[in-house]
Amino acid sequence: MGIGDDCAVLKPTPNQHFYISTDTSIAGVHFFADDDPWSVGWKALAVNLSDLAASGATPVGFTLNLSLPRMDAAWLAAFSQGLLRQAELANCPLVGGDTTSTQPDSPLLVSITVFGERHCDANRLARSAAQEGDQLWVTGIPGLARLGLLQRYEQLGRLPNLLDKPKQALFRQTWAALPTPLQQQAFTRLTRPDIRSQFALQASVWMHAALDLSDGLSGDLQHIAQASGKTLLLHASSLQAIWGGVLGSNQDVFSPSVSNFLLETSLIGGDDYELCFTAPPSHAEALLDLAKSMQIPLCVLGQVQASKSLAHGVVIQDKKGQETALRSNSYNHFGP
Amino acid sequence: MGIGDDCAVLKPTPNQHFYISTDTSIAGVHFFADDDPWSVGWKALAVNLSDLAASGATPVGFTLNLSLPRMDAAWLAAFSQGLLRQAELANCPLVGGDTTSTQPDSPLLVSITVFGERHCDANRLARSAAQEGDQLWVTGIPGLARLGLLQRYEQLGRLPNLLDKPKQALFRQTWAALPTPLQQQAFTRLTRPDIRSQFALQASVWMHAALDLSDGLSGDLQHIAQASGKTLLLHASSLQAIWGGVLGSNQDVFSPSVSNFLLETSLIGGDDYELCFTAPPSHAEALLDLAKSMQIPLCVLGQVQASKSLAHGVVIQDKKGQETALRSNSYNHFGP
Repeated sequence: MGIGDDCAVLKPTPNQHFYISTDTSIAGVHFFADDDPWSVGWKALAVNLSDLAASGATPVGFTLNLSLPRMDAAWLAAFSQGLLRQAELANCPLVGGDTTSTQPDSPLLVSITVFGERHCDANRLARSAAQEGDQLWVTGIPGLARLGLLQRYEQLGRLPNLLDKPKQALFRQTWAALPTPLQQQAFTRLTRPDIRSQFALQASVWMHAALDLSDGLSGDLQHIAQASGKTLLLHASSLQAIWGGVLGSNQDVFSPSVSNFLLETSLIGGDDYELCFTAPPSHAEALLDLAKSMQIPLCVLGQVQASKSLAHGVVIQDKKGQETALRSNSYNHFGP
Repeated sequence: MGIGDDCAVLKPTPNQHFYISTDTSIAGVHFFADDDPWSVGWKALAVNLSDLAASGATPVGFTLNLSLPRMDAAWLAAFSQGLLRQAELANCPLVGGDTTSTQPDSPLLVSITVFGERHCDANRLARSAAQEGDQLWVTGIPGLARLGLLQRYEQLGRLPNLLDKPKQALFRQTWAALPTPLQQQAFTRLTRPDIRSQFALQASVWMHAALDLSDGLSGDLQHIAQASGKTLLLHASSLQAIWGGVLGSNQDVFSPSVSNFLLETSLIGGDDYELCFTAPPSHAEALLDLAKSMQIPLCVLGQVQASKSLAHGVVIQDKKGQETALRSNSYNHFGP
């Protein structure tokens, strides 16, 4: 129905299930209050589309709740442009919402709820669907967004909020050695992530468990391990090879401690909105071909194994074959 | 899918359209920060169910976005109880959501998105569907929630924020003369409104235009008049008769100025979440019978007429037959 009516009305496609996901973005928590509004709008929808993608659902529309401490027409115009550009690319129209004013000292807040469809007979990409023998896959460069975030904190003089002194030094050394295009890519991944929607849709038939990397690899993998009752074996060398691939000859300047810093960044860095999934090895070739045709980086990180203990979990294996249980360091909103 | 998965999945009923509505409730704007949390939870869902009801849709589920400045387990427990009690009564389960922490000085914020279904061949209760000759109906006592709100402001010593001096005196005179059960009903309507969902569902086949009274009668009626391109003629005597009905013999103590104050309260009072709709006179008896069987107060307020001018609008007629164009005084979030 039109703007102003009480409800939006969607006509479900026959034999499709209806998928719903919702996420809130808050100034000062999920984005910097002075972030450019185009990116804030883009990302607020993107993080929701990422959940649909990880469920293999095709977007059909979204609603928007906007809470504004003040009316800033220029900010709103740019925000809307970024939001609606993402909506247009995803073929996901705005179908409803509300706008409310809050106290002048309140943070700006964006809640978005997205709707999607997936055939009722299609496989469910639940976190609990990982099977023994599956390979563990990831798109893109896990941790890249965190490098962008750390540099934003550095620019704001707030890096000590996130890293202790030795790690600050390691980060500065790392950042300085990154090729400029990769630095730019890190900022883009942080503020205007491209969601792997098309790849996810087409590849979903080959996947078992899937999720989007929003909390960080180590935390998100725990979710799959716990829900599926399996152990996930992660090869440190696979993550380091991803960095090696993008750094090329630059990696020669890196010390082992910088290399470890990048590995740790990959494990704890949230906000990547890359796709992480498990699939049987028989589909490996098809997955790699599809990713290549879409120019999407895709790598195997490890395998799904029978659970080694009652505490299902994630194990990381170094190049000497040494295995270490990985603790969840994902972002916890009310953690210490 | 389970808690923690990226999406909720709903299975649409064949031949039903999918209805979506969303509303945000903010501490200090939509409720008092010290309101009892049970009521805050109840009302946050109720105001959304009210939109579904006004569209004739049957609830199927909702998502919740909660933004909390701090973790208060007791508050959250009571909030959840009120929310889930309303959800249980409406047969509308929580299917997903997220919880985020905000700065300690930020207001608590609740965004809810509700989903409902209505048969694809059923009439659309759009604001634009009012037809010439329709009667204009309202459930309950428009303005009752505002009396509760004014008394809350009085208790907080903030009545001058809402009313000028002469009106403050009129309000105090009015409130003091209200029977105690009606005073309690005013608070209940403000904080724990019962939504007219069952009545709306059954009566929807007889309705043309419909909406829920969230912004106040004068503003909400303008929405119907504008969208339908009609003039709505409102009888002041009908609104006064509603008050007369609930005040009984108490109304004898009221001066004409108090009576006018109640009339004005009915016109500008938002937050009632009563149902307002138009329907052909041929259905009047069926509507009244249904309302009676459900013990829901239901009254005709006026008629839908051909538009008298290019500026479609709302006209109020006093007992002498004098007509006055009614200006919209509904709540405007960014108004002066």
